[in-house]
Amino acid sequence: MGDIVNTNAAYISKRLAALGINVFHQSVVGDNPKRLAESLKEALARCNVVITTGGLGPTCDDLTKETAAQVMGLPMVENTAELGRITEYFRMLDRPMTENNKKQALVPSGAAVLKNNYGTAPGILIEKDGKILALLPGPPREMCPMLDNELMPVLEKYSEKTFVSRTVHIFNVGESAVESKLHDLMNSLENPTLAPYAKDGEVLLRVTAAAESAEKGYEMIEPIIAKVRKAIGDENIYGVDVENLQTALVRLLREKNLKVATAESVTGGLVSKRITEVSGASEVFECGVCSYSNSIKNKLLGVSRETLDRFTEYSPETAMEMAKGIREISGADIGVATTGIAGPNGGSAENPVGLVYVAVDSDNYSEVKKLLLSRGYAEEREFIRYIASSHALYMLLKATESL
Amino acid sequence: MGDIVNTNAAYISKRLAALGINVFHQSVVGDNPKRLAESLKEALARCNVVITTGGLGPTCDDLTKETAAQVMGLPMVENTAELGRITEYFRMLDRPMTENNKKQALVPSGAAVLKNNYGTAPGILIEKDGKILALLPGPPREMCPMLDNELMPVLEKYSEKTFVSRTVHIFNVGESAVESKLHDLMNSLENPTLAPYAKDGEVLLRVTAAAESAEKGYEMIEPIIAKVRKAIGDENIYGVDVENLQTALVRLLREKNLKVATAESVTGGLVSKRITEVSGASEVFECGVCSYSNSIKNKLLGVSRETLDRFTEYSPETAMEMAKGIREISGADIGVATTGIAGPNGGSAENPVGLVYVAVDSDNYSEVKKLLLSRGYAEEREFIRYIASSHALYMLLKATESL
Repeated sequence: MGDIVNTNAAYISKRLAALGINVFHQSVVGDNPKRLAESLKEALARCNVVITTGGLGPTCDDLTKETAAQVMGLPMVENTAELGRITEYFRMLDRPMTENNKKQALVPSGAAVLKNNYGTAPGILIEKDGKILALLPGPPREMCPMLDNELMPVLEKYSEKTFVSRTVHIFNVGESAVESKLHDLMNSLENPTLAPYAKDGEVLLRVTAAAESAEKGYEMIEPIIAKVRKAIGDENIYGVDVENLQTALVRLLREKNLKVATAESVTGGLVSKRITEVSGASEVFECGVCSYSNSIKNKLLGVSRETLDRFTEYSPETAMEMAKGIREISGADIGVATTGIAGPNGGSAENPVGLVYVAVDSDNYSEVKKLLLSRGYAEEREFIRYIASSHALYMLLKATESL
Repeated sequence: MGDIVNTNAAYISKRLAALGINVFHQSVVGDNPKRLAESLKEALARCNVVITTGGLGPTCDDLTKETAAQVMGLPMVENTAELGRITEYFRMLDRPMTENNKKQALVPSGAAVLKNNYGTAPGILIEKDGKILALLPGPPREMCPMLDNELMPVLEKYSEKTFVSRTVHIFNVGESAVESKLHDLMNSLENPTLAPYAKDGEVLLRVTAAAESAEKGYEMIEPIIAKVRKAIGDENIYGVDVENLQTALVRLLREKNLKVATAESVTGGLVSKRITEVSGASEVFECGVCSYSNSIKNKLLGVSRETLDRFTEYSPETAMEMAKGIREISGADIGVATTGIAGPNGGSAENPVGLVYVAVDSDNYSEVKKLLLSRGYAEEREFIRYIASSHALYMLLKATESL
């Protein structure tokens, strides 16, 4: 019905990737024994390892275990230890144990039980005819620890190599430009591999190595990262294995013991919001002003009436006076400012929707950047604001590096 | 690799459920043409409607369109209109259009193009041999509007009844409380249906009716909404079919010709960011201050040194002085302020992580609310900040209603 987002699939894939196990298929079917049996048969025919989540509970909808046993040709037998554990669980909760809960102690003959430390339904592990079939519970808080603590040790025995990866964060270069710059390198690589991902207006490049040890894997990755730096340009890479722009910025500011302040118009508080997302931001950020009218730009930030009248609020002059103004008010080492038109209304031929000026001011580095961010789509207001805020963070990072 | 949680599947299922279309299978395969072709064949053999997401972009990994065309036995042809649109997109961005972007204008012969208003890759609709195959882009911000605006009208034609729904927006009441208040009503209903969804700390109640016409459907919904209002309490419902709190707020402020101003500490600019998300916000919002240190609270907002010393920044007194201060500086009709501890560090027994004070000040309505927002999870910083900002918006709405 679409009420639940399947976070289990991504969690399991990530864990298996770390073991070098390729996930080729992921399927979802409802609580229907016929479709479930078909899906299980199909999965067992095309893969070595099949992992299911959900349908292990006590209700009549829960039929994964019974269906799996039938598909594998195994009878169900009562597991005495499990029956004892479930009985004890209800005794501890001081709740009556209903008859349908006994169903949870039934196990396919020959299967191993995977311990559930966070719920009543045990997991099931069947190893038969060269196939591994693992049945895990549905709720992530039960599934994740069972996968990590019970199933992973079993699967690790089958994996020969260790997989490690590092992620290069690129700003200011589009995904297709990254790909065309790295096309030959990507195609020439087998191990490590190199894969680009576009995310929120940035490009991430993941380098993954398979090796006998994590240490050896990281060693193999180093020269690839060096090649990437050369191809993309060091100035367009803001970090390796860093969470995002704001985290890289706050980290560097803390290292250098510097402070920033924000003066926002078009981004409406988004730059300060992103900086303060990072825990510990209060050490490097004290003051932001969102000046959404010319009167406030003048009164609070000290942008001169003359500048506003002569150049309007959509000008590099206004942006720079905002940045200098907030630096003065706050006493911060670096000031950043944004002004522009996020739309959808308010644009003109001269000042179109998507026109943004970002200014940064510090002792060593002062610059205004003009951006044209419109893609001509409907409802791109948040896109324009977000990309503008990313440029502000990126320019703050450049200013911080200069100090 | 497990880097992306598939939210598309749940979104699509929910939409199809509203049309009475049963989703029997959901499958994921990687960017592998052989496995993708097999999955498509399998899906087309067992269902009437097949919807794919992802793989429509410009890179060599993106092969859904080509594979689908091959499975359906259709040659690829260049779509002139799409090529023009993509060329124009790059012209506007002032970026060179690389050769691989032209690939996005190729369309299976006889297929219809689904417009993408949020990205370059168009969607594809193939109706052939009694089957419907729709190819949608992967990024949710492109996929969701394309599904809603382009594909849903096509699918609706195959549904005998018209489905209409209205959504009641509830704030300040938890999902289980809503469910227990409405349990009997929900169970007694067959058409319209009533379904609660928890979203970002709010509860949405969707009332869906199936009828011969949209008009008749909306008529059937009205008495249900009246019952919901009675059960939940009118004061906890901030709108019906309104996008979110900030949209409801900006709309009401514009109607009443009133202005608000924000003074933020713990939310770090998130309140002003959410207000300025709404197009036209500049008519009702001019000024926000993000005062992330006591010195700025004092210097910019006029919070007295005595208050900060005696009660600390984590106090109702500080919150109220911040709200009054920003109202005075900005000349706005209503001031709102937030102060508290988002964590993970900085909490104490007296002032734990999650403690937030939200103050609102206006001529008719002034109030400070104390919130304890911690759920005891790791990485809840953004949750605390977001819920705090929602309370600020909700209190601004109450103040606006009072004026």
